[in-house]
Amino acid sequence: MSEVTDRYPVTERNKVRRLHERGRHDYASVYEILDAAMICHVSYVIDGQPYCTPTAFWREGNHLYWHGSSASRMLRTQKPGTPVCVTVTHLDSLVLARCGFNHSVDYRSAMCFGNAHIIDDLDEKAKLLELMIDRFYPGRNAELRPSTTQELKATMVIGMNIDEASGKVRNKGVGDEEEDYALPIYAARIPVTQVIGTPEDCPRLVEGVPFPKGLAGFTPGRRLDEIMRESYKKTYGET
Amino acid sequence: MSEVTDRYPVTERNKVRRLHERGRHDYASVYEILDAAMICHVSYVIDGQPYCTPTAFWREGNHLYWHGSSASRMLRTQKPGTPVCVTVTHLDSLVLARCGFNHSVDYRSAMCFGNAHIIDDLDEKAKLLELMIDRFYPGRNAELRPSTTQELKATMVIGMNIDEASGKVRNKGVGDEEEDYALPIYAARIPVTQVIGTPEDCPRLVEGVPFPKGLAGFTPGRRLDEIMRESYKKTYGET
Repeated sequence: MSEVTDRYPVTERNKVRRLHERGRHDYASVYEILDAAMICHVSYVIDGQPYCTPTAFWREGNHLYWHGSSASRMLRTQKPGTPVCVTVTHLDSLVLARCGFNHSVDYRSAMCFGNAHIIDDLDEKAKLLELMIDRFYPGRNAELRPSTTQELKATMVIGMNIDEASGKVRNKGVGDEEEDYALPIYAARIPVTQVIGTPEDCPRLVEGVPFPKGLAGFTPGRRLDEIMRESYKKTYGET
Repeated sequence: MSEVTDRYPVTERNKVRRLHERGRHDYASVYEILDAAMICHVSYVIDGQPYCTPTAFWREGNHLYWHGSSASRMLRTQKPGTPVCVTVTHLDSLVLARCGFNHSVDYRSAMCFGNAHIIDDLDEKAKLLELMIDRFYPGRNAELRPSTTQELKATMVIGMNIDEASGKVRNKGVGDEEEDYALPIYAARIPVTQVIGTPEDCPRLVEGVPFPKGLAGFTPGRRLDEIMRESYKKTYGET
């Protein structure tokens, strides 16, 4: 049997048990869900107690990175070897069916498992944080006031190899029992999107500073997930 | 000292350590963040491994409820006494500052801690699931084909008293170092909203079935968080 190299191994941890037709274990499907997002939820355990923290994150190859203050409890806890679960969720629609049981939502989500490690090296940290900025806002890092050593020291960067992952996608809208379709009950799919509005310039913006060319994709009304995937590709290419 | 009854006790678990000016511990602030959402992320621990699962949820008083298949690993694990963390996050804007360090997002988030318990009683479960539907879609339950006993048995409902919670709100847009404002670097707040689109009627909708009056708030382009808070109040009142 040839080795399968385009997908995560399926284990007890990332097996999609329920409605497994929704499950995805290939890298491409998982990465597509991850790269469309800016915010993830990171779960970790302290003394048996689970914590779930929202944070900005990004992907580089099969690694995820996120950051925060060096004083943050979440990050201090994530020493080498600390198991974490990073979850990304996109809500795509509300699904109103003809019975309560079949009410649902369309969504895309990814759960990634791995062990968190802290990036200690200042140079590596600086490079990663620059990539974080560019991953969200292509080309922006070159336009910024460079980070100071103090700022770098005050920032903790956490990395995690994705050891296992699963994606889940529901995209079928209304799915009722066959006999229920004849009932005179309203049923619909209501799309949900996360969109950006018109950029509000900083009130103290120096006169004449133009809107950066790298942010050309950030046009009012666009879907954030589409912008995020686009920004990702502009910075990292089709990886 | 009189007893404070409008807020959660602040402990090691829900203390907002970083940037504590963003922290909220009063019930009203936490409930406002929760009631504006349909989806939460539930974290739980199995054999030391954290899991983070997105799911629809709702609040009743100081309790949170969520549901899923009786076969779901997440829910089976949440036996009485299982500690969980339920987190809700609203992304409100992207904040582009003049240096990488001050890039940020405006957001509202709530972390709730408690012990999950399974609602076993079929009647109680039925009542809760009806309230779940109405909490999202006011008045809708009365219009639906009633749930069957089989459907109720196939559904697990989990409840949790919110023992401790914290809300966090960032809403200040660009916050740069004083000396950086003079730099000729673009800085802005880009609003982010989650909005609904035009309902797509089920292709098999019986002819003449009208759009329900209870869904009057679901007008295309509206913010989902506003609709959710409105739906909550219509079903539960100002609790």
